Order: sequence, then C-alpha cells, then structure tokens
Amino acid sequence: MSQKEKFIGGDALDSLIRTALREDIGTGDITTLSVIPADARAYGRYIAKEDGVLCGMDIAERVYALLGEEMGETDVHFTRHFEDGQPFHKGDVLAEVEGNAITLLSGERVGLNLMQHLSGIATLTHRAVSAVSGTNAKIVDTRKTTPGMRVIEKYAVRVGGGTNHRFNLADGILIKDNHIVAAGGITEAVRAARIRAPHTLKIEVEVENEAQLLEALEAGADIIMLDNMTEEEMAHAVALTNGRALLEASGNMGERDLSKVAKTGVDLISIGALTHSARAMDISLKFSLKR
Amino acid sequence: MSQKEKFIGGDALDSLIRTALREDIGTGDITTLSVIPADARAYGRYIAKEDGVLCGMDIAERVYALLGEEMGETDVHFTRHFEDGQPFHKGDVLAEVEGNAITLLSGERVGLNLMQHLSGIATLTHRAVSAVSGTNAKIVDTRKTTPGMRVIEKYAVRVGGGTNHRFNLADGILIKDNHIVAAGGITEAVRAARIRAPHTLKIEVEVENEAQLLEALEAGADIIMLDNMTEEEMAHAVALTNGRALLEASGNMGERDLSKVAKTGVDLISIGALTHSARAMDISLKFSLKR
Amino acid sequence: MSQKEKFIGGDALDSLIRTALREDIGTGDITTLSVIPADARAYGRYIAKEDGVLCGMDIAERVYALLGEEMGETDVHFTRHFEDGQPFHKGDVLAEVEGNAITLLSGERVGLNLMQHLSGIATLTHRAVSAVSGTNAKIVDTRKTTPGMRVIEKYAVRVGGGTNHRFNLADGILIKDNHIVAAGGITEAVRAARIRAPHTLKIEVEVENEAQLLEALEAGADIIMLDNMTEEEMAHAVALTNGRALLEASGNMGERDLSKVAKTGVDLISIGALTHSARAMDISLKFSLKR
Amino acid sequence: MSQKEKFIGGDALDSLIRTALREDIGTGDITTLSVIPADARAYGRYIAKEDGVLCGMDIAERVYALLGEEMGETDVHFTRHFEDGQPFHKGDVLAEVEGNAITLLSGERVGLNLMQHLSGIATLTHRAVSAVSGTNAKIVDTRKTTPGMRVIEKYAVRVGGGTNHRFNLADGILIKDNHIVAAGGITEAVRAARIRAPHTLKIEVEVENEAQLLEALEAGADIIMLDNMTEEEMAHAVALTNGRALLEASGNMGERDLSKVAKTGVDLISIGALTHSARAMDISLKFSLKR
Amino acid sequence: MSQKEKFIGGDALDSLIRTALREDIGTGDITTLSVIPADARAYGRYIAKEDGVLCGMDIAERVYALLGEEMGETDVHFTRHFEDGQPFHKGDVLAEVEGNAITLLSGERVGLNLMQHLSGIATLTHRAVSAVSGTNAKIVDTRKTTPGMRVIEKYAVRVGGGTNHRFNLADGILIKDNHIVAAGGITEAVRAARIRAPHTLKIEVEVENEAQLLEALEAGADIIMLDNMTEEEMAHAVALTNGRALLEASGNMGERDLSKVAKTGVDLISIGALTHSARAMDISLKFSLKR
Amino acid sequence: MSQKEKFIGGDALDSLIRTALREDIGTGDITTLSVIPADARAYGRYIAKEDGVLCGMDIAERVYALLGEEMGETDVHFTRHFEDGQPFHKGDVLAEVEGNAITLLSGERVGLNLMQHLSGIATLTHRAVSAVSGTNAKIVDTRKTTPGMRVIEKYAVRVGGGTNHRFNLADGILIKDNHIVAAGGITEAVRAARIRAPHTLKIEVEVENEAQLLEALEAGADIIMLDNMTEEEMAHAVALTNGRALLEASGNMGERDLSKVAKTGVDLISIGALTHSARAMDISLKFSLKR
Repeated sequence: MSQKEKFIGGDALDSLIRTALREDIGTGDITTLSVIPADARAYGRYIAKEDGVLCGMDIAERVYALLGEEMGETDVHFTRHFEDGQPFHKGDVLAEVEGNAITLLSGERVGLNLMQHLSGIATLTHRAVSAVSGTNAKIVDTRKTTPGMRVIEKYAVRVGGGTNHRFNLADGILIKDNHIVAAGGITEAVRAARIRAPHTLKIEVEVENEAQLLEALEAGADIIMLDNMTEEEMAHAVALTNGRALLEASGNMGERDLSKVAKTGVDLISIGALTHSARAMDISLKFSLKR
Repeated sequence: MSQKEKFIGGDALDSLIRTALREDIGTGDITTLSVIPADARAYGRYIAKEDGVLCGMDIAERVYALLGEEMGETDVHFTRHFEDGQPFHKGDVLAEVEGNAITLLSGERVGLNLMQHLSGIATLTHRAVSAVSGTNAKIVDTRKTTPGMRVIEKYAVRVGGGTNHRFNLADGILIKDNHIVAAGGITEAVRAARIRAPHTLKIEVEVENEAQLLEALEAGADIIMLDNMTEEEMAHAVALTNGRALLEASGNMGERDLSKVAKTGVDLISIGALTHSARAMDISLKFSLKR
Repeated sequence: MSQKEKFIGGDALDSLIRTALREDIGTGDITTLSVIPADARAYGRYIAKEDGVLCGMDIAERVYALLGEEMGETDVHFTRHFEDGQPFHKGDVLAEVEGNAITLLSGERVGLNLMQHLSGIATLTHRAVSAVSGTNAKIVDTRKTTPGMRVIEKYAVRVGGGTNHRFNLADGILIKDNHIVAAGGITEAVRAARIRAPHTLKIEVEVENEAQLLEALEAGADIIMLDNMTEEEMAHAVALTNGRALLEASGNMGERDLSKVAKTGVDLISIGALTHSARAMDISLKFSLKR
Repeated sequence: MSQKEKFIGGDALDSLIRTALREDIGTGDITTLSVIPADARAYGRYIAKEDGVLCGMDIAERVYALLGEEMGETDVHFTRHFEDGQPFHKGDVLAEVEGNAITLLSGERVGLNLMQHLSGIATLTHRAVSAVSGTNAKIVDTRKTTPGMRVIEKYAVRVGGGTNHRFNLADGILIKDNHIVAAGGITEAVRAARIRAPHTLKIEVEVENEAQLLEALEAGADIIMLDNMTEEEMAHAVALTNGRALLEASGNMGERDLSKVAKTGVDLISIGALTHSARAMDISLKFSLKR
Repeated sequence: MSQKEKFIGGDALDSLIRTALREDIGTGDITTLSVIPADARAYGRYIAKEDGVLCGMDIAERVYALLGEEMGETDVHFTRHFEDGQPFHKGDVLAEVEGNAITLLSGERVGLNLMQHLSGIATLTHRAVSAVSGTNAKIVDTRKTTPGMRVIEKYAVRVGGGTNHRFNLADGILIKDNHIVAAGGITEAVRAARIRAPHTLKIEVEVENEAQLLEALEAGADIIMLDNMTEEEMAHAVALTNGRALLEASGNMGERDLSKVAKTGVDLISIGALTHSARAMDISLKFSLKR
Repeated sequence: MSQKEKFIGGDALDSLIRTALREDIGTGDITTLSVIPADARAYGRYIAKEDGVLCGMDIAERVYALLGEEMGETDVHFTRHFEDGQPFHKGDVLAEVEGNAITLLSGERVGLNLMQHLSGIATLTHRAVSAVSGTNAKIVDTRKTTPGMRVIEKYAVRVGGGTNHRFNLADGILIKDNHIVAAGGITEAVRAARIRAPHTLKIEVEVENEAQLLEALEAGADIIMLDNMTEEEMAHAVALTNGRALLEASGNMGERDLSKVAKTGVDLISIGALTHSARAMDISLKFSLKR
C-alpha cells in the first residue's frame, strides 16, 4: 500500500477510546498506583509476534494522547516505525512510546486491544485482496461489524486493500427477498425505491436465480447481488448481464476459493468474515522502567 | 448449563445497543422505508447454521424492545426457544419474532451481530471448559476484550462455563515485571500494594521462574501467575506452592493442549483468545412478510 | 397528501426534544409552579391562525409524552384532528390535549416552536411542488438545514411533497469546482470517486457551462447539477444530455419562477430556502383550566 | 455597534457544533476524501452576497477549530475582516480561512449555515431597533427560538442591538391568563408568586384590557405586558400606569409599524419573528485550492 | 408542612440517579450475584434512627424504578408512610419496598445516601425556619451546594420551609464589591445592569456599611444584601431603608442567633450551611428475605 | 503527609466540573457580563478562614482551566502555595489566580464549593487518623458518599491519611445478614462467593456475635466486619481470631472514641461520617480588579 488514507471520524473515535479507557481502568489502576512512583518514567516498544499488515497506529497514539490529557501528563512521546497499511514481520519494532510510567502502564491494554483487532482485519483483508489479484474483482466488506466500531473496522478494510460497501442502511439501497415480496415483485420494488429514496443512491437487488437476475436488469437495477451461487452460475450471470449492472458475489465468501470466484468476472466479492471473524494479531508492548 | 445467570449492566447495555442501532440505521433504512408499507407485519425466525452454545438471547430481544420504542412500535413479540447457555444444533430455531415489518427489518443486523459474536465466545469457552473437565482447573478470561463490550463478553464467558478474572484495573491487583522493577523486588511490590490498595483485594504476582515463585510465596502473594511455563515447570510450581497460593497458568493458552495444562494441578488457566479471537457463529434471521 | 410517511429517527428526536425542554424550562417554570395547584388539570386546543400544511403532530405529542414522563405525570391525553401532510385553514382545531396543568403549561412553547417551524417548511415545500405540477421535475431539499434538526426538517420536506437530496456528505457524491481543480479535471475526479467511494453511491457533478456538461457526461456522471443557469441554458442542457444523466437545477431557486424552470425538462430542482428561510406558521395553543 | 459583546456558553456551543458536524459529515465526506489529496491545502473567502449585520464570526471560526482537532489538523488559519455586530455590504469579504483542503471542504456547510442564520436574526433585529430609534422603547426577543439554539439566537438579538427577555421559564415570572384563572384573579396570582418564587425575580403580568391593567398595578406588578392592543390602547395604558411599572407591547409585533408602537411610550416591544422567522442571509464561502 | 411541592427537574434527576447507580454498582454487585438466587424476593423497611424532617421519598422510589428498569425487574413495589416535608421520629417506618432481592440489595445504598443527605438539609432548614418564627424574615439558601445536586438540594430547602435564592448566575443580579470597583461605583454598576440584563430580573447590591447602603438605595436597587453586619447595624439599615428595598442578612449566618437577626426587621436571612454543611440523617433500610 | 498522591479519574472529574459550571452559570453570569468590561483582569487569593487539611487544589485549578477553555480565555494563571494533604492555618493564602475578570468571577463558586467540601473530608479524616496513631488500626471510608463524587471523596480520604474500602459493589465481596439468610448460612455464602466471584477478590463477612465470627473463620473468610460491637466484644474477637483474618470495626464509628476502638487490636475502622457528614471548610476567594 503506497498511500496513507486519511482517517475520518475523530470525534466518534475519541468517544470510543474514552469508553474503553474507563472500562479498563475503572476507578484507577490500583496495582500501578500502589507500586510505581508518581514521577517514574517508562519506555515501551510495540513488537510484532507474527507477520501481518498494520492497522491502528494512529489510534494507539491517540489512546495515549487522551489518557495523558486526563491524567495531566502531556509529556508522552510516541515514535512510529511503521504506518497503517505496511506489512510487518515477526520481531519488528512497530513503534516506541516514552513517558510517565503510571500513564503508560495504565493505558497499555486499550491501545493494544485496538491495534491487534484492527491489524487482524487488515491482514485478513490483505490476504483476500491478494487472492484475487490479476482479476477485476474488488474485495468489499459488509455491515457485519462490531457494534460501535464500524467506522474504524471499515477503515481497517481499506487499509488492507479492500473497498467499503455501504456504511449503514441510509447510504445504500439493497432490495432483498422480503422487500420483493412486500412490493409484489422486483420491478415494483425498484420503482418504489426510485420514487422515495434520494436520487443520489444506486439501487442494488439481491437475486438467487436467473429469472430474478433478468427481472432486475429489466427493472434497471444498478447493482445485482448474486446470493450463494456456484461459480458456474456466477459466470453465466456475468455473461447475461453483459455490463448492464455491477455484479456482487455474496454468501459465506470467507470460506470460498476467492480466486475462482473472481475469475467468473464478478465486479465485487463481499465478505462478512473480514470484520466479524478476524483473529487478533499478536502484538506486544514491552516496557522498561526508569526510576 | 442448568442455571440462567442474571445479566447485570442494563444501562450500559442499552447505551451500546443504541449506539449500534444509530451506527447501522443512520438516518433511516431507506430501502425498507421506500418499499415496505408502513403497516406491513413480518415474522422472523432465528436459525442456527452450525452447532454451538447460545449467548445473546436477552440482548437480541432488547434490541427490538429499544428499536420498537424509538420507532413508536410497541407491538413486537419475541418468543424464545433456547436460553443463554444452552447448546444448539444446526437447523435449530432459536427464537421467533413478530411485529411491524419496517421495525423488524431495520433492526435485523444489530441483534444478529451481537448474538453471533457472543455465541462465538460462549462456544469457544465451552470447548475449553470441556477440555479440562475432570480436573480442578477453572477456565478464566482476560482483559483482552472488545472496547465497550467487556461486561457482555465476560458474561458470554460465564455462559460458556468459564469464570471471570478481574473486570478492570481497579478490582484486582496484578504485579507484573515492571511493577517489580519499579518497587525494587517482589517483596517490596507486595508490601506497597498491601499498604495502599483496598484491603478487599487479593494480591497476584506474575512470575517467570522458580526463584520468583519462591519470593512471591514468601512475600505472601495470594495468587501467582505462571507466565509461559512448560507443563513440567507448572507441575513443579504446583508442588513447591503446596496450597499456599492459587496458581494461574497464562501465556498463549489458546494454542496449548488445555488438558495437559490442567493436569499439572494449576488452579486457573487464563485465555485471551476466548474474547479477542472467537469466530462469529453462523446464525441467520429469516423473515416472511404479511402484507 | 394521502399517505402518512413513517417517521424515523426517534432516538435523536427524543434527544432534541429533551434538549429543548431543558433549554426552555431551566430549573423549573417558576410562574406556573407558584400559581397553579399541583393537581389542577388543563385542556388545550392547537388552533391554526393561518392556512398551511401541517407538520409536527407526532413531535408535539411526543413533547408531552416525554415531559409527562419526566414530571411523573402519565395522564396526558393527546387527540389529533389533523395528521402531518394535511392542509389546514385558519381557525381549524388541529389537536387537543388534556392533562395536569403544570405539565401542560410548562411544555407549551417547545411543542409549538417545533410544530410552527416544521409546518412552515412543509407549507413552503408544498407551494414549490404545486408550482411545478404537471411537469416531471421533483422539488428536492439541500443541506442548508438548522444544526441538529436535519432529519426532521427533511421529513418536513417530504411531508410537503418534496423529495430528499443526500442527508450528509457520506451518502452522496457531489463533485464541485474545487474537487475538479484538485483532481485535474472532471474526468479524473469522476474516476477517483469511482475507485474510492462505495459502489452503492451515484456520482453527481456540478457544472457551470456546456463544456463541463459534455465532459461530465463523457466521464459517466450519473447526475449533473446545473448551477445558476438561465432557463435557456437549462433547456439546452436537457437536449444535450438526452437522458444519459439526471439533471438538477440549482442556485437561488427559492427566488426563481419554478414553473418555468421545471418546463425546461430538468429532473430535479433543489431549493435551500425550503429549510433555511421558511417562516414559522402561526399556530397557537389555547388552554382552559379546571381547578 | 461600537462594542463587542462577550459570548458566553462555550460548552453548549461546542456541543451544538459537534452535533452539526456529525450530522453533516456522517461517516465522512466521501467526495472530498476520494478526490482531494490528503496533503492539499485550500484558501477560502467568506463573501457577502447581500447587505446585513454580521453575527456568527466566532462560531464559524470555532467550527474549524473543533473540526481541525477531530481530524488531527491543527494548522487552520482564520482571519477576520469583520466582527459580530458590524454592518456589511454585498461583495464584502468577511473573513478568510486557510488550511488542509479536506478539513476545510468537509466543514464548509456547518459554519455557513450558522453564520447565515445568526446574521439573519441580527439583521432583522437591527431593522427593528432602527425603526424605534429616537424613542425610549427597547426591542426584546421571546422564547420562540429554535430548539437547542436559544443562547446563540439571543446573542444574535443582542448583536443586532436588541435586548433579551427571559432565557427560560425559571429566570422570569410572567403571569398569563391561565395563571390568573387558576389563582382566582390577578391579585391572588401576584401574591402567590411573591411567596414562592425567588425574591430576585420581578413579576410580570399579561393584561388584555384596562381593568386588568389597573388590577395588576394595584397588585404591585413590576412589569405589565399589553397583549394585542391598538396603539390607542397602549397610549392610554402608558398614561394610566404613569411610571409605576414597565410596559411591554406584545402580539404579532413583527407585522406592526414599530415606530408607531414605540411612540405610544411603551418601554419594551417583544417580537417573536426576530428568532423564528428571520430569513438566512446570503453569504458564500469560495475556495481556491493549492495542490 | 401542609402542602406537597411538586418536584421539577426529572430528567436531570434521572441522570444523577443513573450516575450514582453506575458509580456504586460498577460492573455488578458481585456479592449479591454470587449468593442470592435470581428469583429470590426481598422486603425492606426504611426506618428512622433519629428525629428529623423527611426529604427524598420521591427520589428513593425513583432509584428503584430506574434500577428495576435496567435490570429487567418491573415488579418492585414501593409503599410510602411519610411524604417529603413531614417530621418523623426515631423508630418510624418511613416506607416499605418489596421486589426481586438482587435488585433491592444492589440499589440499597444509592437511595439511602440521597434520602439521608436531603433529609439532613430539610431538617437543618426546618430548625432555622423555626428559630425565626413570629418574625417576617424568610430563610433562604445560597449557591453553596454540592456540584450536580443544586436543584434537589434547593428542593430540600423548600421542603424544610425555606425559600430559594437564585438558582444560578443567570437568574438573579447580585452586584458585589468587585462589580462595584469595575463599574466605578454602585450607581454606575446598577445602571449598567439595568441596560444589559433582562428587564425581568431585580437588581441586588451587596453593601458593607451605611454609605454604600444609601448609595444603593439612591441608585434604585431592588434588594440590598447586608454583609457581615452586627444586629445593631442591621436594625439601623432597616430603619434607613424604610421599605424602599428588600434587605437580606448574609455572612456565616449558620453560626448566628437567627432569632436575634430576624428581629432586626430584615426580610431575608441567607445561610450557606443549609446545603454545604448539613449532617446526613441516620435512616436505615432493613431487609428480610423470602427464598 | 510527605507524598503527593497521583490523582486518577480525570475524565469523570472533568465531566463533574462541567456539570457544576453549567449548573452554576446557567445561560451566563448576567451581573458580571453587565458590569465588568470584557478585557478587565482580576487577581484573586484563596484564603483559609480556619485551620484544616487541604484537598482540592488540583480540582480548583482544573475548574479555571476548563472554564477558560469554554470562554476562550487561555490566559489564566494559577499559583499554588499549598498542596493537597498539607495542613493550613487561618489566614494562610493557599493559592493565587490571575486572569480575565469575567472568567474568574464566573467560576469562583464552583472551585470554592469543591475545595471546601473536599478539605472538610480530608480534615475530618486527618482527625480520625490522629486519634488512632500509635495503634495498628487503619481508618477506612465507606460507600456513604455523595452521588457522582465518590472517586474524589475517596481521594480526599486518602489525602487526609485514611485508606479506601471498596469503591463499588464489584470490587469487593461483603457478605451481610441478608446474604447469609439467602445462602442458608455463612459457610454456604462464603462457598458460593468463592465459586462465582473473580478469584482476585477477598471475601469479607459481617458478623454480630461470637458464633458468627467462629463460623466465618471456619469458612475461610479473609476479612470479618464486627458490626456495632462494644470494645470488650471487639477485644475478644481479636483474641479469638488470632491473625486468621483481618478485623474491621463498623457501626456509627463517627461517634465513638476511636482511640479506644483502635486499642482493641482491630485492623480497620470504617467511618461513614468521613464522607457523608463532613462540614465544609471555610475558605474564601478574594479578588481585586485591574481595569
């Protein structure tokens, strides 16, 4: 990844970090307060314990900025050696931090939890993107995210090389089976969406078979989601569509051979597992203390 | 699991659910609003797509209670067929829900995301607990939880048969290497904690070798964490300790043979992976619509 | 308007109402508390003092529901005679309310302020929609809304017969002059948006002349905003476009002859004045008291 | 206006601005993020498109300070050429802003919406104040304000040369018809208020005719509101009162000839339209970009 | 006290109670959760351990209503035997409560803490009011209240028979020495306040000697605060004033003989100790359990 | 007190201060705004009016930091002459503050209220600690704190030389009479707590007589609370226990001769009055103004 994406959503991020700090520190890190002198300083190194793609460096730094502010310690120095999106290897020192020992020890876990979780997502996404390289297919995420963390989890997907699907139910139209039943058919559902929804949104329709695909194309759908199809069915859908709409492969894609799916010619492959089942990367924060 | 644990932390839970709903619905589920008549009713069934241990039924029901309240629809009926802690099998209908179609469709993903995530933790915990059955070892969690979800993730651990370690840095004393360095030794660190911390908290010390273990016992530590030891080292520690303190095995326990670890005679095995790397269970919510 | 739209966004609405109540009541309606007996009951009628289109009935009722809850008075009865979207005439009794006198008097202003403001928007929108009847043009709103009230002001636009443009900067792509300069041209800007933005969003480009229009069409823009054009220019743009994109007329449309604009064949006319300059409708709430 | 009033209420103002930013930016300004390089800088000018009295300069600057903080961009420079309270003319450059292009473009609308709205109020107030110049009458506002914006709207009234009536129901006593009925008469109502309310508040009574006026004077009212009276009735009331109380003219004053009302000798003229029906001033923010 | 005052400020009160519950319960009442069966029921009695005036009954009931809601237990019954403002004696059963045992035990302390604190204020106020009975002097409170509890502490003062001074710096004008210095004299300060402040507020001036008193009267002050004067000085001030303004005695009045102060003829005696130094009343909550 | 304890809980503290400022300032300090020029500067001195132990210096400084930020005045200088924990005498100048006059006057009361309240607690605690000097008994606090202020009130106890008991119901196990009844005996209650609660918490049991004491010791209780015992009973309990558990004296200890209680040999004496009935210390803030 050659370009650092600008991270957006700072206010919500700060709120999440503050919640996490309160949750983890409670009424005070009683061990550290009891044992560490108030003026002791510590020096810590973030060390990768396995290979992966980094995500969460901005956030880990922000954790200490906010905690330092709350604890009246502004003298916390954070030095990065890797940026979000860069691959790292076991043993790499990702960043260093230096400051008041009580502050650094009290905030250790929150920053690590976030960096490990987001790097897990970025790494898993990167693997999926690599699997489809050489094809036109984009890897996209879903709304199967952790409550309260959608914006940063979708950021991790971008950092891993993926592309975002809609962020919420308001910024994309996706007509599913129930909508079709309620409207009395795909044609009627598409027409209703066109009348009521902002004209800035494309209309996506989920289909399960060829008949539905053809009806959706006829109705003028901009995007068609192919749900749980075999690679043969997908390839047939690509041929039938012939560029009239974007095609998105969907349905437990986390367990499929992505390369084969991509080679059917679909435009997008959406994978819930990117965000709901990524394993935390093993990254540690080792301190040494200066009395 | 024969007994339903009382879930505590309602206010924070409601706040989490509201955050998740706002995050997912944004300014409105534009597809559903466009296509579904305001008075249509829907009927949905939560269906297990694989085997596991259930967790999150209270929460899924609460999602619809809160969303119904916000959308002015109080007529949402939720019927449970399984309770938290019960094992389920692929194909089981876990619960049913019936109500206004716009409300049910708008809230589908938030409830599912939570139930899938928590059931994943309960299932993983249950597997760990089963692995040590027949020994005296308890499976305990860590602070490696998702920001904002610690109380419910630790609840999921209990539902899976595990026991909770401390909830935050204020309700347990855990003296680690840096504390020892700062205090000038284990003896001094334990003494400092005893003076300053509330007398209601036990004192736990993390040790890496026999010398530290002996010093901790001598200092009167109530609990000793054995960090990254082999089974042989643990068995030796158990013999040396001889009941003078609780012993907790720790360090990438998610990748160890838990049965062997338990048989060394340690009292507790703490596993970060229970909460930070559990895979979401595959549970779906299938609707049928009544116009 | 024959159909009641479902209002979405309850939680944010409640928060707005609570803010307004705190703002208006402060530490207590000292006059009413001093003079009105705690158990007195009042009966009030909402009376139109001029003609208009109603908006805010749900909200006015919700004001009393929330205030009643806060003041421990659940016995407030609200009876509607008109629904949102209905036209009313001077002298019409729009609704009646009956309950504890202190509660009703303390909450009078907040409900009225909201109903007057939203009815002002609905009425102004209705006039604009009427002006273009018989054409294909839709009247759409903008982001020129009152801070904190966008969702309900856009609801008022729908109630008045208008259609919503994007709700925020995340649910629509609108490439303006600065974006074009930064990207190095319309073609490049459209391409960049297609790569980075969710595929669910259409791409709109703002153009000021024929050359830009043609470039935008060539680049595959889905929607083209015609900024500050004369009716002749618009008609020419319609002819050039020939259905390849939606056309949106924009730029002080609140002061234009909407009928003439609509007859040029544009698809959409966006009007900031709908929300930023609507005059409050004159609606009063007259009480009689029962001691 | 020769003197800058100190603006109070910063915390509530920040909260309002943050709400507005979240509302407008949502999960990110997707157009700008897609098209504008992360390190591009922009330069913008606030330009008046019509004549008016300025209000909101502090607030517009604060919008960028808060947004910059959230987006990690502290390098935003804001240069004022006009201050709140100064008259401006079409074409005037009111202020300039320079900084990171993504930050400036993302925050454009929120600052403008506030400045346009508040300048509209200040301008309308200024016109009312001018209309009564040469008399002793003060122009005062009402509680007919936008929910959540009362403090800043009342600030805009002061900026326009007006004076504030009470801010909420707790910092002023105003006995109206219902209070009189409930208490059993003006005399009784005034007495009840004197007993129960803080002694720091004056007592105002709304009257509709001469008999009520005389009873209120007799009861010792400090202020008397003359509701919907003709100028002749007001002049008569002034004569009857003869300085024993302040007199406030009220009731659709926004549509009256203020000069005539003021010449009756009333002390105060309260006008709801100042805040509920002011038209937004036309002010634009024109950017140029530096790649 | 023959009349129950209506308590206002419910939303802020609920917020305070929720804060207190979170603060006291943390992540769960671990003792009760461990030991008490989930379906056990408890019956509790609030018992006075000394004589006093009751305040906080509404609030104690509200604590259980909110906690029950959070814990999903709606079956909590609260029965009052005394109301706010009633005197009670050692041994009196003030109220009874019955419901789920875990809920009742978890919420015990928060309700008691509030009732004991507020009853302490009401009792102390009642004693002060009794001390001045037979005179015209009112006992009033100050702004020396506990952060976050002003509205309910001032309610407790009213319950004890006292009267409220201003609630905050916005609903009363009180010109002190620094204001006088800044303005260049009492006369100038009063004039400035009259121009800028809402006309609904009276003007109070703090004076320390006869010269200041006379200047304040001349300037038209509505209320004059006599700061730290002897009873002789107060009596002289009463004579000089002769009804032209209200007179308020102030300055460590908690340690004065209130009867003597009242007999000087002052209208008001303000006492900070009512709220900042009242001792908590001894009230206990005794449970019996039903398995 | 020779060592300054690090104060923890900044975020909650800021929230408390902001609540207090909003509560006290309301919509603006109308007196100061009317009378004091916007650019006037003031200089203030905090002066002790009686002897005591200081607590709240950090907080008073923080009040002005936060208010200055809100009011756009960063030029506030705070100079300390005493630190938390130091004894002071009548007439001592504790600190000085210099800055914009409107800012300083508007925030005066909030900082003072907090400093007076916390110093009251520290002083009362200091007296209790002095009373038991020469014994091994520690003075500890309780959960009888002011809602929303527990963390800082417990800080004040530490500042006064006391030790903290548990902060909330989650960080300590205390088995009381009802728990014993519910469990079917002390033995069963202790066993249940050991199974369910985190292993990091000690188990405390409240006993009323010798039989209960012996059962608790037998069950392995770590701490035993002696409720309302005479000194003779306590001494007997100390002899019986013989070091097998910590002993805590409890029950209206605020009214006991602490020296006698301590000499019985108990380890801890818990006193609710430290936090719920401490009198505010008399500290004033005297300003001089620079025009």
